[in-house]
Amino acid sequence: MVTIKDIANRLGIAPSTVSKGLNDASDISPELKKLVLDTAIEMGYVTKRMKKETRKRLCIFIENMQYERSGDFGFDIILGFRQAALRDNWDVTVVPITPVLQLRDPYDRYMVKNNYHGGFLVGFALKDPWMAQLETTTIPTVLFDNYIRKNPNVAYVGTDSFEGIDLAIDHLTELGHTKIALLNGSPDSMVTVNRYDAYVSSMQSHNLEVDENLVAYGYYVEESAKYHLPSLIEHGATAILCGNDLLAVGVIRECERLNIKIPEALSVVGFDNLPIAQTISPALTTINQDRIDLGRNSYAALYWLIAKVPISRSLLRPQLIVRDTTFEVNSIANK
Amino acid sequence: MVTIKDIANRLGIAPSTVSKGLNDASDISPELKKLVLDTAIEMGYVTKRMKKETRKRLCIFIENMQYERSGDFGFDIILGFRQAALRDNWDVTVVPITPVLQLRDPYDRYMVKNNYHGGFLVGFALKDPWMAQLETTTIPTVLFDNYIRKNPNVAYVGTDSFEGIDLAIDHLTELGHTKIALLNGSPDSMVTVNRYDAYVSSMQSHNLEVDENLVAYGYYVEESAKYHLPSLIEHGATAILCGNDLLAVGVIRECERLNIKIPEALSVVGFDNLPIAQTISPALTTINQDRIDLGRNSYAALYWLIAKVPISRSLLRPQLIVRDTTFEVNSIANK
Repeated sequence: MVTIKDIANRLGIAPSTVSKGLNDASDISPELKKLVLDTAIEMGYVTKRMKKETRKRLCIFIENMQYERSGDFGFDIILGFRQAALRDNWDVTVVPITPVLQLRDPYDRYMVKNNYHGGFLVGFALKDPWMAQLETTTIPTVLFDNYIRKNPNVAYVGTDSFEGIDLAIDHLTELGHTKIALLNGSPDSMVTVNRYDAYVSSMQSHNLEVDENLVAYGYYVEESAKYHLPSLIEHGATAILCGNDLLAVGVIRECERLNIKIPEALSVVGFDNLPIAQTISPALTTINQDRIDLGRNSYAALYWLIAKVPISRSLLRPQLIVRDTTFEVNSIANK
Repeated sequence: MVTIKDIANRLGIAPSTVSKGLNDASDISPELKKLVLDTAIEMGYVTKRMKKETRKRLCIFIENMQYERSGDFGFDIILGFRQAALRDNWDVTVVPITPVLQLRDPYDRYMVKNNYHGGFLVGFALKDPWMAQLETTTIPTVLFDNYIRKNPNVAYVGTDSFEGIDLAIDHLTELGHTKIALLNGSPDSMVTVNRYDAYVSSMQSHNLEVDENLVAYGYYVEESAKYHLPSLIEHGATAILCGNDLLAVGVIRECERLNIKIPEALSVVGFDNLPIAQTISPALTTINQDRIDLGRNSYAALYWLIAKVPISRSLLRPQLIVRDTTFEVNSIANK
């Protein structure tokens, strides 16, 4: 077990100085404090305070979504996490984060400085400064809808994409569709790769041919849909599976503009069951992720990471929510 | 909430008779008892006893593997499960099971009769009588290395195949291999499908072409390997990734017979890190599943299923164990 003396020896300074650095004392320069903390992290030092604490402190970092009011995408995720954490009476802090704040302190240093035993990261983008650091972090960390290879301290929690896509394709094939397109999100996301793999696997298990002309990659935003829609329709798509609800909304709006009737001429399925899926007209058939369950499962995964069980991914069962954007395939070509 | 009266009304019998059936009384015919239990299960009735019990009873059903002594494949899985269950002080019973015993009582009836709140099924084959029943079971159930679609009461726990295969292909490509074959298990297993998908995905992310002539499906037993080895070698394989250690052992033994030097002429990677991986010569490079962690994670998943969090799959990080069956690719063709 690494001691303060070990750190002192490594740096060639007095143990008392190391102690000052670890305890955020005022009579030590910021640069030396940073050096002490970084070295401690690198050597795997666990503060006495953290070792003693049976009541763990956890931090939820949230970005790129609303979360403060009921109905916000992040609200239920946090609520579920807090509910599950009550059972062990652990402390949960919610910190809204940005790339700029991430540049100020590397992830590990932030966590050790604030005495957090584990982190739950929600809404991070792949390019965020902290994401690359997660490849080597020693802090138990759960990522929502994001995956880091190989690091046994990091787990991915999300919806089972394979099953979600499979439910959607079940539904569409029951309605007679065979030319089912996939309008996916940006290819640098693990979720995108999962959903493509799931699409291929599900089409094959439904004995449908995969036509790569019916696969498009956009961005997970509404505006991206219109660039890909014409080509998919031109290649004969009678139904479009979208990587998320925002892309589906983009398809719906562009079809409205082009006078393509949904669902009669084209069926559309989203993913996520965001509030807009209910408010848009026609109301969107989509795959639901129960966000309270996601929050609870995220706490569960973090609990086991802290207990040194190297969970890689923990995925929940989604549900198909059928609304008004899917219908029997129209046997008469109708554009 | 379903009551005894509801069951009585459904069956057209007295509530007292229903009570006798639920409590396994002696003064009721076996046929009527069965009918009462099956109806109760179908209607989702939870016995008063089960509702009152905060100390849950869990059952581990184990089949097709040794488990009673340290070193047995099932021993550590059960040990890990028991260790994790200690935390909540829940009761764990281990029941060795066979297809014949499964025919005697349907799964749900067995569980309700014995007052088990949840089940953990280890070593089941796809064709086992209970497996089909799991598609509609209302009992929280965790399956080891097996998957049931759509049922939110059933979760799959195992190793992250994607990461395992990826680690193996990392290793082989670092040794210069490009013609990497996959000798997979029988295609009716979810694990087999996963490993094929993982192989394709990983070859692509390593910028390697997938040659379907280098993909073979056998059975997860040693004897199966020899039927597929010649073709893989004929098509230029310099390394073979095997669906499990038994297939890899089959490859090693057949190569010995054919005088093909491992690892100089052919690299071989297994999966599972069974005891034989260490005892065979040359010792087998393989992907390790820590079975104590798998046991602990299975308990964790069952805990959350009982709490109504619909976990679909919870997978652990595997580790690559490099031994003596992998080596730099031999640039001189050597058969």
